[in-house]
Amino acid sequence: MLITFEGMDGSGKSTQARLFAEYLRASLGAEKIILTREPGGTPIGEQIREVLHSMRNQEMAARTEFLLYNAARAQVVAQVIRPALEQAKIVLSDRFGDSTLVYQGYGRQLDLEMVKRVIEYATGGLKPDLTFFLDVAIEEGLARRSNGHQRGEELNRMDTQTREFYERVRNGYETLMRQEPTRWIRVDGARSIEQVQFDLREKFNSRQFIPTQTV
Amino acid sequence: MLITFEGMDGSGKSTQARLFAEYLRASLGAEKIILTREPGGTPIGEQIREVLHSMRNQEMAARTEFLLYNAARAQVVAQVIRPALEQAKIVLSDRFGDSTLVYQGYGRQLDLEMVKRVIEYATGGLKPDLTFFLDVAIEEGLARRSNGHQRGEELNRMDTQTREFYERVRNGYETLMRQEPTRWIRVDGARSIEQVQFDLREKFNSRQFIPTQTV
Repeated sequence: MLITFEGMDGSGKSTQARLFAEYLRASLGAEKIILTREPGGTPIGEQIREVLHSMRNQEMAARTEFLLYNAARAQVVAQVIRPALEQAKIVLSDRFGDSTLVYQGYGRQLDLEMVKRVIEYATGGLKPDLTFFLDVAIEEGLARRSNGHQRGEELNRMDTQTREFYERVRNGYETLMRQEPTRWIRVDGARSIEQVQFDLREKFNSRQFIPTQTV
Repeated sequence: MLITFEGMDGSGKSTQARLFAEYLRASLGAEKIILTREPGGTPIGEQIREVLHSMRNQEMAARTEFLLYNAARAQVVAQVIRPALEQAKIVLSDRFGDSTLVYQGYGRQLDLEMVKRVIEYATGGLKPDLTFFLDVAIEEGLARRSNGHQRGEELNRMDTQTREFYERVRNGYETLMRQEPTRWIRVDGARSIEQVQFDLREKFNSRQFIPTQTV
């Protein structure tokens, strides 16, 4: 089973994925659970992540960015996710193909058909069984990132986009949730870490694969 | 005008491209000629080149490699080649899309239609006007690389492939030359640097876009 965590930067995805992995490890056994992330999750993918995130690389072309995300993805699928799924493990991924579809497809306005085709190629057609959407308003996500940077967290190239870009990304997520309502579970992320995690576990356990609300 | 240099590693491409650039600069003016290379040619592309060439990265998946070459390509096209062509400059590139078609398509045996589609996407449909093929036997190329390494040139990940891989690459080049005989100029690379460069200039100046010989 492949479970992915999606949302805007600052939505708490990474924290929630980590806490959910701890929960599943305690419930099912540590050896059954793999937590990974995109871009990254492998030594090669982490090198690609550095290129993508480096503040030096402001001149990156949209197609370059798009192909780099998929290169990292192809590696983590081949080296981590597929082998784990073949051993019947549960894989949790902090971001997956949907991130590229919304950030590069909707956000950068690249050709959606080509974007979908290359994601499918990079993943070998692998799709998540379940996707959590950590829902926070754009302002809230940006404010959390900004607080994080003041506490010393590193600013990365994807933190420096226009407001319009983030709105297109947000609308992209809403579109994807409408298209596949049973795969997505929307979780209100504008609460304490503990409240969000409690809600997320409850929704997972009751398997309420209910349609997400449209906005 | 876009002129590309292709061939196996150790065929003398880079040296010949550099000497040909010097020749054109002397003939047409230095500001008219841009010499670039793949993967690389831009700060971002050189970072990607490092990932591709690093001997640490032996576990790289074929699709990752393929997408990384195209990411570097999309960047050099957007940042260097297109702007230069729009200013009516002559661009010389040490490797271009054909390298990915033969190394990743024929060599790694990835799906050729997908390979062509992504190359076309990365280049925005840009094709070379003329391509020199530096023709040396596989053994000769490998021996030259091996001598280079003994002189301290860095060994890279693409130097460590199987004999069968290099044969598929070589056959790939032969196939491409048969398909587009007027674009390719085959130059016998098994001679001194000066002889090869003389031949190459002569063929360029007489514009003998003659069909390459089939083997």
